[in-house]
Amino acid sequence: MVVVMAPEATESDIDNIVALVGAAGGEAFVSRGVNRTIVGLVGDIERFGTLNLRGQRGVSDVVRISAPYKLVSRENHAERSVVRVGGVPIGPGTMTLIAGPCAAETPDQTLQGALMAKAAGASLLRGGAFKPRTSPYAFQGLGEAGLKILADVRAETGMPIVTEVVDARDVELVAEYADMLQIGTRNTQNFALLQAVGDAGKPVMIKRGMSGTIEEWLMSAEYVAQRGNLDVVLCERGIRTYEKATRNTLDISAVPVAQRLSHLPVIVDPSHSGGRRDLVLPLTRAAIAVGADGVIIDVHPHPETALCDGPQALVHADMAELAELVQALPPVVGRRLTPAPEKVVAG
Amino acid sequence: MVVVMAPEATESDIDNIVALVGAAGGEAFVSRGVNRTIVGLVGDIERFGTLNLRGQRGVSDVVRISAPYKLVSRENHAERSVVRVGGVPIGPGTMTLIAGPCAAETPDQTLQGALMAKAAGASLLRGGAFKPRTSPYAFQGLGEAGLKILADVRAETGMPIVTEVVDARDVELVAEYADMLQIGTRNTQNFALLQAVGDAGKPVMIKRGMSGTIEEWLMSAEYVAQRGNLDVVLCERGIRTYEKATRNTLDISAVPVAQRLSHLPVIVDPSHSGGRRDLVLPLTRAAIAVGADGVIIDVHPHPETALCDGPQALVHADMAELAELVQALPPVVGRRLTPAPEKVVAG
Amino acid sequence: MVVVMAPEATESDIDNIVALVGAAGGEAFVSRGVNRTIVGLVGDIERFGTLNLRGQRGVSDVVRISAPYKLVSRENHAERSVVRVGGVPIGPGTMTLIAGPCAAETPDQTLQGALMAKAAGASLLRGGAFKPRTSPYAFQGLGEAGLKILADVRAETGMPIVTEVVDARDVELVAEYADMLQIGTRNTQNFALLQAVGDAGKPVMIKRGMSGTIEEWLMSAEYVAQRGNLDVVLCERGIRTYEKATRNTLDISAVPVAQRLSHLPVIVDPSHSGGRRDLVLPLTRAAIAVGADGVIIDVHPHPETALCDGPQALVHADMAELAELVQALPPVVGRRLTPAPEKVVAG
Amino acid sequence: MVVVMAPEATESDIDNIVALVGAAGGEAFVSRGVNRTIVGLVGDIERFGTLNLRGQRGVSDVVRISAPYKLVSRENHAERSVVRVGGVPIGPGTMTLIAGPCAAETPDQTLQGALMAKAAGASLLRGGAFKPRTSPYAFQGLGEAGLKILADVRAETGMPIVTEVVDARDVELVAEYADMLQIGTRNTQNFALLQAVGDAGKPVMIKRGMSGTIEEWLMSAEYVAQRGNLDVVLCERGIRTYEKATRNTLDISAVPVAQRLSHLPVIVDPSHSGGRRDLVLPLTRAAIAVGADGVIIDVHPHPETALCDGPQALVHADMAELAELVQALPPVVGRRLTPAPEKVVAG
Repeated sequence: MVVVMAPEATESDIDNIVALVGAAGGEAFVSRGVNRTIVGLVGDIERFGTLNLRGQRGVSDVVRISAPYKLVSRENHAERSVVRVGGVPIGPGTMTLIAGPCAAETPDQTLQGALMAKAAGASLLRGGAFKPRTSPYAFQGLGEAGLKILADVRAETGMPIVTEVVDARDVELVAEYADMLQIGTRNTQNFALLQAVGDAGKPVMIKRGMSGTIEEWLMSAEYVAQRGNLDVVLCERGIRTYEKATRNTLDISAVPVAQRLSHLPVIVDPSHSGGRRDLVLPLTRAAIAVGADGVIIDVHPHPETALCDGPQALVHADMAELAELVQALPPVVGRRLTPAPEKVVAG
Repeated sequence: MVVVMAPEATESDIDNIVALVGAAGGEAFVSRGVNRTIVGLVGDIERFGTLNLRGQRGVSDVVRISAPYKLVSRENHAERSVVRVGGVPIGPGTMTLIAGPCAAETPDQTLQGALMAKAAGASLLRGGAFKPRTSPYAFQGLGEAGLKILADVRAETGMPIVTEVVDARDVELVAEYADMLQIGTRNTQNFALLQAVGDAGKPVMIKRGMSGTIEEWLMSAEYVAQRGNLDVVLCERGIRTYEKATRNTLDISAVPVAQRLSHLPVIVDPSHSGGRRDLVLPLTRAAIAVGADGVIIDVHPHPETALCDGPQALVHADMAELAELVQALPPVVGRRLTPAPEKVVAG
Repeated sequence: MVVVMAPEATESDIDNIVALVGAAGGEAFVSRGVNRTIVGLVGDIERFGTLNLRGQRGVSDVVRISAPYKLVSRENHAERSVVRVGGVPIGPGTMTLIAGPCAAETPDQTLQGALMAKAAGASLLRGGAFKPRTSPYAFQGLGEAGLKILADVRAETGMPIVTEVVDARDVELVAEYADMLQIGTRNTQNFALLQAVGDAGKPVMIKRGMSGTIEEWLMSAEYVAQRGNLDVVLCERGIRTYEKATRNTLDISAVPVAQRLSHLPVIVDPSHSGGRRDLVLPLTRAAIAVGADGVIIDVHPHPETALCDGPQALVHADMAELAELVQALPPVVGRRLTPAPEKVVAG
Repeated sequence: MVVVMAPEATESDIDNIVALVGAAGGEAFVSRGVNRTIVGLVGDIERFGTLNLRGQRGVSDVVRISAPYKLVSRENHAERSVVRVGGVPIGPGTMTLIAGPCAAETPDQTLQGALMAKAAGASLLRGGAFKPRTSPYAFQGLGEAGLKILADVRAETGMPIVTEVVDARDVELVAEYADMLQIGTRNTQNFALLQAVGDAGKPVMIKRGMSGTIEEWLMSAEYVAQRGNLDVVLCERGIRTYEKATRNTLDISAVPVAQRLSHLPVIVDPSHSGGRRDLVLPLTRAAIAVGADGVIIDVHPHPETALCDGPQALVHADMAELAELVQALPPVVGRRLTPAPEKVVAG
C-alpha cells in the first residue's frame, strides 16, 4: 500500500501517517520527491484498512498494491483448480460444454434440449427454473416444478444440472435438485445470496456482473470461498458498453486475465454475450481458442416458441457445427472435450 | 411495436408475421420500402411479447415503441407524485434534504451526525445498519443494533429514518424500525428484494443501478409498484463510466429525464456520485438547480475514524455552506426547503 | 513514480530498477512488503519515461503519481486564469453566455440567431462554417462563405465569434475571421490540429473528447499551451456511456474536477450533452450552479428547417426563461453574467 | 424510416408528416395504435434526412431502419472483398499476419523486427514513422527518416509496408513510401484525413475509434469509399470501457458483426487491445478462431528499450509459439496463412 501525499502536505502530516502505521504494527517508508512525498506501507493490510488513511490531512491518494482477495487468488495457490460438478470436471486440460435451454418450460422441451446438447458433446445440462427478469410482467420460471423437470431429465440423460438461484430463501430448495448453483449477472453483488450459496455445499458458478470489474468478480467468488466453499467457477458473459450491435460486449480478454489472477476455472457464455444466434458459434470458437475452461450455451428445440431469450438459442441446424468445433478446437490449445457422463453421479 | 423485416425476407415471412399478430388479437400494418419492409403492430403488447417475433424467419429487428413500465409511467398519471416519509414530503414544490452518517457506528456518532444534519436543514435522517460491501472482510454494519441506535436518534431529534435493506429475509425487521426502506445500487435488480419491500408497507427509495439505464431503474420501481406500493422515490447516484477522477459519473440529466417519464419523485446522492468530499457541495448545487426533489448527503462528525466511506462525508466545517445553499437555491427553481419535523411522526 | 515489483521478482530485478533510475540521475527508495516490494522514484520524470520501466523483468506495475501536464496544471499556477475573446472575459467571477446557431446557413438565419442570443444575454456568438459530420453525405457547412456571414453578423451585433476548425490546412483561414477557434470533440486528439491552433495566435476552446478522460482533455490543452498559447478554454460536452435516453451523458462533476486540476476556464455545452431541447435549460442551470465559467448554447430561429442539430436548439419560446436564469443564478454562486460588448473588438 | 408520434400528437401533426414526406417524393403509411401512431416512410432516405422530421410537432422519435452507409455495405455487395497490399491479399479464405515494431526507431531495430515478423509468418510489415501521442513531450516518430528506414527494410525483406498517417498534409509524402496507409484510433473521425487518404490511391486500414460504434467505423470507411477508394480494411483494436485490467477491451464480436454488415475485410490488433505482452498470443488465437481476416501484432527485438508501447510487444521468446499458431489455427476455420511475398512488389 502506498500513500501519496498532496503537494501542500506538511511534515507533520507525513509524521501523522508514519505514526498511524506504526501504531497499527506496520512500517512506513518515506520517499520525498520534488513535488510530492510518497509513503510505502509494509504490514497487515487489513489493519491499515481501518486507519482511514485517505481521510487524513495532507493525503492525496492511497494506492493499493496487492489484491483484496486472498482465498481465490493465485498468489498463494499457483496451480489452477479443477471443480467437479456431479463428477464432471471443469478446469485446466479439459474444455467442458454446458448446454441446454435457457428455461425449463415443459418436460418435453427440456428433454429435447438436453438431448440436443448431449449429442453435440455437452456433459452438463443448463436450464432455469427461477429466472430474474427486468419486467415484473415477464415469465419468471416454473419454480420447483421446473427443478423437478430438470431432475427427471438428469435421470434420463445422466447429465448433472446447472441452474440459477435468485433468492437466498430458495437456496436450500434449489440445492436439493441442482448439481451446481448459478449466480446470475444481476446478483453478482447480492452478498446475502453469495453467502447462502457458500453455505449450501454445492459447486457454484458466478457470472460476471453486467458492469463488474474483474476484481469485483473475484471478490464475489471470495464471498463464497470465505464460507468454506472453494468449488467456484467464474463465467464471463459480456459486459455493458455503449455498443448496441450486440446485447453485451464479450470481454474475451477477461478469460486469460482472470486465470492469471485466480486459480478458479473460467468459462464463457457466448449466448448471453452476443444475444444473437448468428454470433454463438464464432464466439464459442473464440472462447475455446483463448483458453476458456468451458462454455455454456443456450439451445432450444423450438426457439420460435421460447418463453425466454429465444433469439440467442442454437437450434437443430446448428448442432452439427457445434459438435464438430468442440471436438476440433480444444486440441489446438492443449485441451480435450470433457466426455459426457455415462450415468447420473449424485450431485 | 414495429417489426423490421430483413432485406431477404420473403412474402411468406411477412404473411407469417401478419398471421401471428392476427391470431394474438392484434392488427399488422405492412409498409414496403425499397430495400426493406416494416410491419407496424397495434394491439395488446403483452400478448405480442409471447410471440417471439424476433425469432421468426425473415425478421431483422423488433423495435418497441411504448414504455414497458405502466404504473410508474407519467403517460397515464400526468401529475407528479408526492411521497411522504414519516410525514415529511418529497416531491414537486419542495426540496428535501436527507442527511446523516453513511453507517450507524455508535449512538454518539449517530446522534452527532443527525444533529449536524438537522442544523443544516435536513428533515430526514439517513444511516445504514446493513451495509453491502464489496469485500467480505469489510465492516458490514451493526445490524439490528444499528437500527435501535437509529430509532433512539429519531426519538431524540424527531427525524424520520431512511435506511438500507440488503436481504429479503431482513425486510420485516428493518421495516419495524425504518420510515423509508432504501434499495442500494447493487440490489436494484434483486427482484426478490424489490418484491419484499413492495409488500412491506413502507415508502421505498430505489437507487439507480451502478450501470443501470433509466428504463431499468423505472422497471425496478415498477416491481415495487406492482405489489401495490406506489410510495417510491428514485435516487440518482452516479453511473459507472471509464472516467476515474470520480468514484462514479453523476448523470445529472437523469433527473429531468426520469421526471418526464415517471410521476415519481427523483432525488440525487452527491456523496456517492463523486466519492470526494470536495465535490459534494458543487454537486448538491447542480442537483437542486437541475430540479431534483431532494438530495441525500453523507455527514460525519469525525470522518477520519469512519468505518465506511469517510472520504466523501461532509464535516463540521462544511455545514454552514450547506445550510446556506439549501435555503438560497431552491427558490431560484420555484421550490422551498422542506422544513424539519417538529416531533416524531410514526413511520 | 512508483514501481511495483511482482511477487516473484528477484533481488537482481530490484537492483536493476535501482541502477536504471540512478543512471538516469534519479533516486530509488525500496520498500519491502510481505508479498511485494515497491520502489519509489524521485527525480526527472521525463527521463524516467524513456527507461521503459514497465518492460523490465520482475515489474508488475508502474504507478504515476504526479500529473503529466505542466503548463495547464494548477500545481504551479494556483490562480485561475481569465481568457479574453475579442475583449469578452471567460473565467472566475463571471458567467459567460455563448450562443448562436449550430451552423451558419444563411445571412438572415445567422443574424436572427445572433440577435436572439444577444437579447438573452449572450456576449459571444457561436456558429459553424466547417462541420464535422459522421456521414459524408450530410451537410458539412458553408466553409469560407459561412465565415463571411459570421463576420458580417459580428459587425452588425458587436459579438465576437467562436467557430470550429476541423482541418489543420484551414486554421489560417479560419483564424482570419474568428475570435476564438473551437476544437470539436472528434478532434480532441487530432494532435496536428492542436499544434496548428496553438500557433495561430487566437484563443482556443477545446471540447472534451467523446470518451476522453479529464486527464486526456488537459493533455490536449497542454498541446496548445506547449506552442506558447495559454488562452485555452475547456468545454465539457457530455461523454459517451451506455445510457441512450440522452445523446451523451453530461459529466457535470468534470467542471469542479478540471477547475481544481487546471487554472484554465471550464465551460459547459448543455445542447450537445443532452441532444434534446427540453434538457437545455435544466442543464444550463446545473452548469451555472456547479460553478462553470460559461455555457455555450445552440439557438435557432427556425429549428424545423435547421440543417444541423435542429432537435437540440432553443427557440424563441425559450428565450425569456434563458434570459432570466442567466441573470438570476450566477449571483447565487458568486458570479455575474458577462455583459455583451458595446461594439466590435477586433478579434 | 419510421416516425413515432407522441401520445399527445394531433391528427394535424400526423397530416403534417404525411404531407412533408409526400412533398419529398415519398410515401407514408400510418399505423394507429392504442396509445401511439407510427408512420412508416418509403422513398429516398437522403431526401427525408433534410426534412428534420424529429423537429416537427408531435414527433416523439424517428427510427432509422436501413444503414446509413452504402458503398461499404454488404446489402448490395454480398461477396466479401479481398484487398491487396503490395500484392498480399487480405480477405476471406486467408489469414494475413501483419507484424513489426510499433515505431521505426533505428535501421537495425526495424530490420530485426521485420525479420522476426517474417520468420513467424508475417507477409506485411507494420511500423510507425508518425506516432500520435497523448503527451506533447513523448516521442512522436522519426517522420520521413522513419519512412526511409521502412522502405529500406522492405527492399531487404520483400515485405510491403503498413504505416500510419496522422495529418492530411502528410498523406502525399507517406503514400510515396507506404503500401498501405493506416488511420489510427484517434483519427477515425478526422474526416479531412479520411478524405485525403481516400484520394491517395493506396489501400487504407482504418482502426476502430477508441469508443466508436461499429456503425461509426463503417461510416469512416464510407468516407474513404466515397472518394473512390474501396481498398479499405477495418481493424478492431479494443474499445474503452470501465475495465482497467486491460488497456482496452477487445470487442471480439465486432469481427463477425462487421463482416456481416460490410464486405470489407476485418482484422484484429491484439497488441493494442490488451496492452500486455502476456495477452497477445491468447487474443491472437481468439481473433483467428472468431474468423478475422488477419491480425496485426507489435514485435520488438529489445522491448526494454522501445520508445513506444514496449510493454505490449512480443519478443524473441514468443516467436516460435506465434509461428506455430498462425499455421495451426487458420485451417480449423477454413483459412490458410497468407504466405510471405518472395520479393518486393511495388506498393
